[in-house]
Amino acid sequence: MSNAVSDLPQRVFLHEVAPRDGLQIEPVFVPTDAKVAWIDRLSETGVAKIEIGSFVSPKAVPALADGEEVARRIRRRPGVRYAALIPNVRGAERAAGTGLDEVNVVVSASETHNRANLRMARADSFRQLAEIARVLEGSGVALTSSVATAFGCPFEGPQERAKIFDQAALLIDAGCVGVTLADTTGMANPRQVAETVAAVLRARPEIARGSVQLTLHFHNTRGVGLANVLAAAQAGATRFDAALGGLGGCPFAPGATGNVCTEDVVSMFAEMGVETGVDLGRLIAIARELPDLVGHEVPGQVAKAGRPCDLHPVPTAAAA
Amino acid sequence: MSNAVSDLPQRVFLHEVAPRDGLQIEPVFVPTDAKVAWIDRLSETGVAKIEIGSFVSPKAVPALADGEEVARRIRRRPGVRYAALIPNVRGAERAAGTGLDEVNVVVSASETHNRANLRMARADSFRQLAEIARVLEGSGVALTSSVATAFGCPFEGPQERAKIFDQAALLIDAGCVGVTLADTTGMANPRQVAETVAAVLRARPEIARGSVQLTLHFHNTRGVGLANVLAAAQAGATRFDAALGGLGGCPFAPGATGNVCTEDVVSMFAEMGVETGVDLGRLIAIARELPDLVGHEVPGQVAKAGRPCDLHPVPTAAAA
Repeated sequence: MSNAVSDLPQRVFLHEVAPRDGLQIEPVFVPTDAKVAWIDRLSETGVAKIEIGSFVSPKAVPALADGEEVARRIRRRPGVRYAALIPNVRGAERAAGTGLDEVNVVVSASETHNRANLRMARADSFRQLAEIARVLEGSGVALTSSVATAFGCPFEGPQERAKIFDQAALLIDAGCVGVTLADTTGMANPRQVAETVAAVLRARPEIARGSVQLTLHFHNTRGVGLANVLAAAQAGATRFDAALGGLGGCPFAPGATGNVCTEDVVSMFAEMGVETGVDLGRLIAIARELPDLVGHEVPGQVAKAGRPCDLHPVPTAAAA
Repeated sequence: MSNAVSDLPQRVFLHEVAPRDGLQIEPVFVPTDAKVAWIDRLSETGVAKIEIGSFVSPKAVPALADGEEVARRIRRRPGVRYAALIPNVRGAERAAGTGLDEVNVVVSASETHNRANLRMARADSFRQLAEIARVLEGSGVALTSSVATAFGCPFEGPQERAKIFDQAALLIDAGCVGVTLADTTGMANPRQVAETVAAVLRARPEIARGSVQLTLHFHNTRGVGLANVLAAAQAGATRFDAALGGLGGCPFAPGATGNVCTEDVVSMFAEMGVETGVDLGRLIAIARELPDLVGHEVPGQVAKAGRPCDLHPVPTAAAA
């Protein structure tokens, strides 16, 4: 009988986005010293990439106002790629000076979401992307791009798959070395994810060959985040964004969880025998300090419950 | 390319366990009037079964002390099966008088867990199960049984799959019309679930034929509950226990979530086009009143975030 597990990859790669997508909607400003120390510890866990912050206007996102300083002060561990979000050409110029490995530009599949999020039409976002690519040429900073609302827009609803393909093609043609399909507000379901990933791998030989990296970015807004990660992995995806503790939230769903939780994702893969390269114990230790860092409980489960292999003492009644 | 979604069943069945497994560890006693009204509303949602309470000692589980009264007073909707947990022969005698559709007896796969949970050896539990089957003969009350810790024991760790098979065979021979594989403390992973379900369906023709119902019972203790539901469905399982709001908790993991959340599971299946028979809007309305019923926030996500199809008004900036 054909089933899910026969199709899982042997190795997956985790991209830690808590310092950017996780902190972005936090009302507190995590002091730069604490942020740098935190990122340095995340560098030691075995994640493949860390999104360390963003080069947006400090007025727009005060929590991430220290992008340059963070980029300059973190200890870069060989083998880990360091990335930042940029909203425009100015952001690219700022990032280019920091010597980060890559920058990521977000463009929504949904016209309405793009206007709400970036205050510009998609066509203008694509023009800007081309300009950003020119700015980065020769800087050593690679360009990646996220297709926001790829699995649904909170204003428009479902998005045509053809639009996702067209955007992915456009991003690859513009020189992006990585394309992320982002379920920005947690609307994806596993069937849609599996079908979309399989179709993208068929449609884009650059991705199937690995010369362009495909990343999946899920939010757990409706509880189905890890099921979507599983479905994507079954369909051939190997790179996943995730945030320590499940930080991130959703502006449209007060009380809802944020990004899929890195330690929960790593635990799921580890239990299935899929290599992640991540030291889960180390990751959990950092996750357990998150409530102190951000000032509230976080939604991640494994940091609270421990790993499945962390056994409990036998109660006296049962030991007899 | 073979992937997950091609193997999903067209129809799945939800068993609502919040009134029993959900309330069991709650420190508050939900008044019987409120409990009955709540169960009556759950009866109208389209779930296939409701576990309404248990016939255990009121001293052991004060929250469920009103089992008989609840069983007597609920309005039974045709097409819904009403079940209760029983711990022993005395429980079976009490349940037989209520005319419930079925009672469920729990026996752990793990010897240590069985002794800790039920204060008896597994061999004694099986002897008792045979006696319970005799008590129920001719009463019209069907017998089902759960294999607790089927996917791992918090004291012993992983359980041999052969032990699960042997126990399932024993339960079926004892006359059980349903067998539940329960991930009692949330240790399962999707690969293990898919392999176990596929193997049980191969090994037990009664289950594959449908004369014995196989149910999967997952806790979301490590965030992977819905991924396990997905993996089980891909492998051919069609019946799932779930608790409204994700009630349930775990005595070993303070702060961890409980059972998989009914409205989150229903939403996942509905989004994938898998029929559940459940009116999700109605379920969400009841789930949103849960914090008032139990006195605290609950972990379910869809009741907070809304369904993926519940769109948001377009912000003014984007409407231009």
